Amino acid sequence: MAAKDHLALQELVRLQVESGADFIDINAGTFISTETEMMSWLVELVQEVTDKPLCVDTTNADALATALQLAQKPALINSISMEGTRFEDVSRLALKFGSSVIGLCQTGEKIPDRAEERISAGIELAERLRHIGIPEENIYLDPLVNAVAVNQQAAMTVFHTVQGLKAKVPFAKIVCGLSNVGFGLPKRKLINRSFLAMLTAAGLDGAIIDPLDQEMMEMAYASDMLAGKDFRCRRYLKMFR
Amino acid sequence: MAAKDHLALQELVRLQVESGADFIDINAGTFISTETEMMSWLVELVQEVTDKPLCVDTTNADALATALQLAQKPALINSISMEGTRFEDVSRLALKFGSSVIGLCQTGEKIPDRAEERISAGIELAERLRHIGIPEENIYLDPLVNAVAVNQQAAMTVFHTVQGLKAKVPFAKIVCGLSNVGFGLPKRKLINRSFLAMLTAAGLDGAIIDPLDQEMMEMAYASDMLAGKDFRCRRYLKMFR
Repeated sequence: MAAKDHLALQELVRLQVESGADFIDINAGTFISTETEMMSWLVELVQEVTDKPLCVDTTNADALATALQLAQKPALINSISMEGTRFEDVSRLALKFGSSVIGLCQTGEKIPDRAEERISAGIELAERLRHIGIPEENIYLDPLVNAVAVNQQAAMTVFHTVQGLKAKVPFAKIVCGLSNVGFGLPKRKLINRSFLAMLTAAGLDGAIIDPLDQEMMEMAYASDMLAGKDFRCRRYLKMFR
Repeated sequence: MAAKDHLALQELVRLQVESGADFIDINAGTFISTETEMMSWLVELVQEVTDKPLCVDTTNADALATALQLAQKPALINSISMEGTRFEDVSRLALKFGSSVIGLCQTGEKIPDRAEERISAGIELAERLRHIGIPEENIYLDPLVNAVAVNQQAAMTVFHTVQGLKAKVPFAKIVCGLSNVGFGLPKRKLINRSFLAMLTAAGLDGAIIDPLDQEMMEMAYASDMLAGKDFRCRRYLKMFR
């Protein structure tokens, strides 16, 4: 991105789509002063090679508005929360552009330690989103993943949060990143695969993963099948054909 | 075993112990007419190379009695059930030899389809075992694993059974085989790894696995760590040193 290598990024997007990505996550957060321009450039180059929907991954309201404006189909916003003015700012854009939103399961600035608090925050956020007119099918929740090397219960807290959210807010889809869980540990890809299987059994609907990581994709297909989501094991069997 | 290759089997046992096996499973079930003799031979050759406890895996009461008699330390019996005279036959031997027992979560001959029925059967069996004087720490339950290719919910039924048993019979340890789940499908080892991660998050305490399967062992260590069972990630880190 820094080198503005248009073709290399488009090739990456093509490979991600071929490998089974459902959304293309775009994130220019490291370019603090030029994030908005970078984001526009990304949206356009991605849309030249695929019609998969975008997941716009930013905390910058300008960059978000610009990306949503340019997006040819409704995007998924990562993320919205109840912190400060973020709820108003992001929900206004989501309503304007028909976007889906990923809500963070926290009320204040800090990620709650306990699953119960994350579940309450998720319920509250989903209800507020529904109340202002975001359709249920456009509401996603992120249980928030911390490092197991820092807190031994970090992974199980996410596991219980996912189970609780699926039980209490059944209309919301649950998605998260995985790799924070293995922060500071060796063999993080192994840890990510194990975590994905666990969370899929708990009811996880999607995750931010590298679709070019073949071992991870195989684990995703196997886990979906074991979770009873793969009618007659068709997607699993197709993967190995 | 058919060739009576004493040294090859002892080498296998040594490798299993080195690779982290907690019990050595012995099973001579394919030798229908000579199972008891085969079992005695196995018990003795295993005990020459390790003092790990045995898991005596048989439905033959004679073979079981013989193995328990020869075992130098209390063994784990796989399995006991409420079917026919099996409960009386096996529990008598368990009391006599101080063995642990794996109870099957079924009441009749058929494995129940629903998790609720398996949980009820597990509770009843564990209570009967406790009632006749088997110490709580010697009671194991097997949630019973069927093929996901036959019944799309087969894996999730086991997942819910494990969660239910951990909640309702917290003193019992939950163990099972994994490989039935992938019957008829390609890449069964991948399926087994995914299933182990899921069941570990649900509360599984142990599984019958091949400790020489390094990818499986890595998944077991990663899953135990994520399940919050590995204080300061020590066993996980030790594995990679």
